Amino acid sequence: MQKTAIAIHGGAGTITQATLSAEQDIAYKAALKEAVEAGHQVLAAGGTALEAVELAVVYLEDSPLFNAGKGSVFTKEGKHEMDASIMCGKTLEAGAIAGVKSIKNPIKLASAVMLHSEHVMLSSYGAEEFALAYGIEFAPEKYFFDKYRYEQWSEVRDSDIFMLDHTEQRDEKFGTVGAVAVDQAGNVAAATSTGGMTNKRYNRIGDTPIIGSGTYANNRTCAISCTGHGEFFMRAVVAYDVSCLIEYKGYTLRQACDEVVMKKLVAFGGEGGLIAVSTAGEVAMPFNSEGMYRASKVAQQETFVEIYKR
Amino acid sequence: MQKTAIAIHGGAGTITQATLSAEQDIAYKAALKEAVEAGHQVLAAGGTALEAVELAVVYLEDSPLFNAGKGSVFTKEGKHEMDASIMCGKTLEAGAIAGVKSIKNPIKLASAVMLHSEHVMLSSYGAEEFALAYGIEFAPEKYFFDKYRYEQWSEVRDSDIFMLDHTEQRDEKFGTVGAVAVDQAGNVAAATSTGGMTNKRYNRIGDTPIIGSGTYANNRTCAISCTGHGEFFMRAVVAYDVSCLIEYKGYTLRQACDEVVMKKLVAFGGEGGLIAVSTAGEVAMPFNSEGMYRASKVAQQETFVEIYKR
Repeated sequence: MQKTAIAIHGGAGTITQATLSAEQDIAYKAALKEAVEAGHQVLAAGGTALEAVELAVVYLEDSPLFNAGKGSVFTKEGKHEMDASIMCGKTLEAGAIAGVKSIKNPIKLASAVMLHSEHVMLSSYGAEEFALAYGIEFAPEKYFFDKYRYEQWSEVRDSDIFMLDHTEQRDEKFGTVGAVAVDQAGNVAAATSTGGMTNKRYNRIGDTPIIGSGTYANNRTCAISCTGHGEFFMRAVVAYDVSCLIEYKGYTLRQACDEVVMKKLVAFGGEGGLIAVSTAGEVAMPFNSEGMYRASKVAQQETFVEIYKR
Repeated sequence: MQKTAIAIHGGAGTITQATLSAEQDIAYKAALKEAVEAGHQVLAAGGTALEAVELAVVYLEDSPLFNAGKGSVFTKEGKHEMDASIMCGKTLEAGAIAGVKSIKNPIKLASAVMLHSEHVMLSSYGAEEFALAYGIEFAPEKYFFDKYRYEQWSEVRDSDIFMLDHTEQRDEKFGTVGAVAVDQAGNVAAATSTGGMTNKRYNRIGDTPIIGSGTYANNRTCAISCTGHGEFFMRAVVAYDVSCLIEYKGYTLRQACDEVVMKKLVAFGGEGGLIAVSTAGEVAMPFNSEGMYRASKVAQQETFVEIYKR
């Protein structure tokens, strides 16, 4: 029986002990611990990697702390536009949605697209029409309302400034959540979800719903979920690059992740990080920013939860 | 001075001499010749690969023969939804748009996104708002009206059938256009544009606007533009896979293209093809379908134009 492993992230950026209060530190770590252990329970009970990553991401989407689902930031129009994707490493099946406004858990919709649609990627109104047809839960605008997010947006709403969750003015945090896992059968899966950029315009789509950039899973190599300045992650096709370095150059998971996140992305100017789990149950969580909300649990080992560099 | 090369495609699928009339054969070949030679003229005059691929794609978008721009097919709602992307191999800058309705030349909008936006990918109404701000030409619905496309859609509009341009019932043609080129400075570029699937729903997005799947360019390797059953091309991250096989495994352009199109995609069930040009000026145009509208011109050599296998 394969050793199970799961890793999750809640975004990366300029997150230091100085920028988080003691209460925030505790709250974030508790939310991460709860999510990763919920995913782990699925794996321990013999569930699939797909089920585990979806559930872990649902926990993160349901928390107001992270920029995904309930905690999604405001667009230029004062709305919410969410993206998500999920991929199965065994079948290479994938589902993605972009620019949905009223979906309580975007990752559930991405999963429904993977399972029930002949397509990989649906967007905006069409994705919501599909959600209706498949019984995916909607939520009213007030569900996504958060006083902090609203104030954050109010400061920049009349400008052309867009913020990667909280850029420059605040704490340069790239708001995305994600999970990767390997199950007892040795199958890997990856899932990613985001509320995008604060004050974003033009129905911008980032790397989160892009298979190969923000999310990728393949039983020949590993599962990957990214968080960071999406435009750079798209241009560098980050998630698939990690997989290719393992498959084509024989890199270990650690070597591939370091090459992409700490060397190539740094040289390219792309701030952020990723989480990865190999089919052998190895975990890597590299980031080139100040911090990344992250947690992991390998087999029955103690749960690892961290925010800052260490 | 680098030997220039340009290759273009107008879609792949079940295209045989039996399915095309002599008049159609002549019309398609003339349109392909005109487009590839227009792109070649740009390169011969010292223009950039980016300028050449954009111009060649504009020619194909302006032709009613191909499923992109003017010739775009109808969606379930009887509208047009177009996607496009462009990438520069020197800077790895990229621009993409998805789900635009009234843009005369989607590739020009993708190029404007690359040049003037801090984002890589814009979609639907937001992309059109951006187009307005940057003086990109709009076209009324009647511009995109075509009797043949309308009849094609009318046959299936009341069903759940969607068609990759003309699937099964007709000639299984995957409607996309694209161009790849290398200029005198040795820089490569790729561009792809499509009207998507006939009768498509749910604001589906295919591989065309996905950097790494439908389009990719990198001066370390080559430029690639794909056409085929987009869902498979997204799950296989086709364009970047070709690049990685060259960069990480030392494959030649031909070996990498054959591995991806003739082996991996065939095993995966993904029908279609791609065009690729290396920084050395080599051209590859593999496809695993019956035919692919294609043309190329290397330096001052004779223009190559073909539709069927040969």
